[in-house]
Amino acid sequence: MEGFVAAGITAGIKPSGAPDMSVVATADAAPVAAAGTFTSNKMTAAPVLVTRGHLERSGGLAAAVILNSGNANAATGRQGLADAERMCGLTAAALGCSSDHVLVCSTGLIGFELPMEVIAAGIPRVVAARHPGGGSEAARAMMTTDTVAKEVVVDGGGFTVGGIAKGAAMLEPNMATMLAVVTTDAAAEPAELQDVLRSGVATSFNRLTVDGAESTNDTVLLLANGRAGAVPRDALAAAVAEACGDLALQMADDAEGSTKTVLLRVTGAASDAEAAKAARDCANCQLVKCSWFGEDPYWGRIASEFGAAGVAFDPERLRIAYGDHVVYADGRPQQPDAEAVGAYMRRRRLHLNVDLGLGHGRAEIITVDLSHAYIDENSRTS
Amino acid sequence: MEGFVAAGITAGIKPSGAPDMSVVATADAAPVAAAGTFTSNKMTAAPVLVTRGHLERSGGLAAAVILNSGNANAATGRQGLADAERMCGLTAAALGCSSDHVLVCSTGLIGFELPMEVIAAGIPRVVAARHPGGGSEAARAMMTTDTVAKEVVVDGGGFTVGGIAKGAAMLEPNMATMLAVVTTDAAAEPAELQDVLRSGVATSFNRLTVDGAESTNDTVLLLANGRAGAVPRDALAAAVAEACGDLALQMADDAEGSTKTVLLRVTGAASDAEAAKAARDCANCQLVKCSWFGEDPYWGRIASEFGAAGVAFDPERLRIAYGDHVVYADGRPQQPDAEAVGAYMRRRRLHLNVDLGLGHGRAEIITVDLSHAYIDENSRTS
Repeated sequence: MEGFVAAGITAGIKPSGAPDMSVVATADAAPVAAAGTFTSNKMTAAPVLVTRGHLERSGGLAAAVILNSGNANAATGRQGLADAERMCGLTAAALGCSSDHVLVCSTGLIGFELPMEVIAAGIPRVVAARHPGGGSEAARAMMTTDTVAKEVVVDGGGFTVGGIAKGAAMLEPNMATMLAVVTTDAAAEPAELQDVLRSGVATSFNRLTVDGAESTNDTVLLLANGRAGAVPRDALAAAVAEACGDLALQMADDAEGSTKTVLLRVTGAASDAEAAKAARDCANCQLVKCSWFGEDPYWGRIASEFGAAGVAFDPERLRIAYGDHVVYADGRPQQPDAEAVGAYMRRRRLHLNVDLGLGHGRAEIITVDLSHAYIDENSRTS
Repeated sequence: MEGFVAAGITAGIKPSGAPDMSVVATADAAPVAAAGTFTSNKMTAAPVLVTRGHLERSGGLAAAVILNSGNANAATGRQGLADAERMCGLTAAALGCSSDHVLVCSTGLIGFELPMEVIAAGIPRVVAARHPGGGSEAARAMMTTDTVAKEVVVDGGGFTVGGIAKGAAMLEPNMATMLAVVTTDAAAEPAELQDVLRSGVATSFNRLTVDGAESTNDTVLLLANGRAGAVPRDALAAAVAEACGDLALQMADDAEGSTKTVLLRVTGAASDAEAAKAARDCANCQLVKCSWFGEDPYWGRIASEFGAAGVAFDPERLRIAYGDHVVYADGRPQQPDAEAVGAYMRRRRLHLNVDLGLGHGRAEIITVDLSHAYIDENSRTS
């Protein structure tokens, strides 16, 4: 996108030699309007604290984001804060901007100090490598257990929103080990940009849950350089929401070891809040997740989970459907065409529609199944 | 135990031919004081509704419990209620007691009507097979995915408390697909017995969580025949709690596919409620469960889960230990003896002690790891 540059390199943080350092910056290294949303985990990682502080001090302006994968710089105490600040300082020096105008993100294992010699050597290299088409390289160097890089471009009609992201597990309630950097050439004031980002995140990353866990490092950043001039607030919000939604779906499709992406829609609840509570409980239920892994349209555990969710519930009014295949209604199991349901369940993306038949409350959640591969990826830290 | 008889047989409900019908009754088929605690899942199974109704109508008296495995008689509508009542009626006819004095429990798949011809033929047989030493047979015929039968006998000093149980998954907040029948020869009024049972369940089954799910059928019943005469209320409560605690630990040790039983103790929380909330979140976190499966003493996910639990939390005051091996304290990872920690993590039962360093709130939870076998057992209903 015009006015932004990016790069991704192998700095040497990851033992594997895979790319592990990225930068996204304004083309002229001048600060532009910026906004951020962050994890609410109280075990907050150092880069989150530093980035929040920089956005506060600058009044919502930033010229660059420096990112590393392979080490989350979390649970690293005072040294971690100093290291995160130093990453910003080194980036500012290489770019020729103020350190307060650099934001920082880290992702990887928590509890280990950053290898600062490696990082200090890498920062000037990644900054020097920046170029207008560097977004894909930057996305690749953010990956941890991701198997594919995540990018999106949305044409807003006279302006553009682009984004890169990583995140494959621990995505929930208020996002989780996920990082996203979104840029736009639209013009916006920092406060307006913050509202736009918050609403975009609410309908995308915050609706995605992989395993109910929330990370120490989750960050979504939005930079607006104004090259395309002012645009209607609604149009900007819609384009940012679309970009975030696309990235969130990419994350689900690439979630650790998952074989199914499930788009769960709950309707007919007593309230939106009850719909959201029940949807989240169902999405995070290990037993339900296992049934998706087994491509089994068994409604029993889904019904049981809604019955246990602490929301208004009447088994006689409940209706459960996979796609158009109704598997439970009128107080009893239905018998949809077994072959057609079987074929539907073999798809990567499943639409699960649960209607509680009680009111107008509704919610949508994106989630994934639970597989052997998930356990394998998460049973050892090394 | 004097004054009770039991039996377990193969009625033919399970295709496998494994035992699937049990009875526990007073020796003379006379009603005695009885109490029950039940699932709070609103998708309540028919036998739970019928048993509750019988205890209410009888004012807390029962002469027998009839149980079947292989079919939960849940989500079966009006037919399910009629079938559960009929199970009681057939049992009462075979024993020569009132139908209201028979309680009924079912466990197995939900959403399928009971095979009533098979059951009607089985009930007179299981009743005829009852004998004073039949508890083990009854425990065996309650099993679903259990690999071992669960029994306990507690010597209360002048009286005895015995129990049988099944349950290997979905054990949480207010119990879950678990059934337990506890008997005692102590004398107690029904109301007193209900209090004793409620407090015993609170410190045992309700502290056990396998996967956060709660079943449609959970039931714990307690019958007191008074043969040993009156006993101090505290002594009875202690013995019932001990019996329930022992059965709960047996359930954890045999939880579906699990390889670890984890006794998680949280101390130093701002309140008992916050300790319980954080303990439950940590116990049900898939990522933490995977680390136990991998015998990995990684503290990072535990710390992250406590940070995300919505309770008062300070990473600098947090202390995490497996047994006596402190893995995190003073705001950073500790380096306990790797060989000793490794040996500790290979044990079946792990004591995980998390101190928040903030107050006097405490809680204890029993849980298990997440394994490939759990997924295999739960990915298909058939």
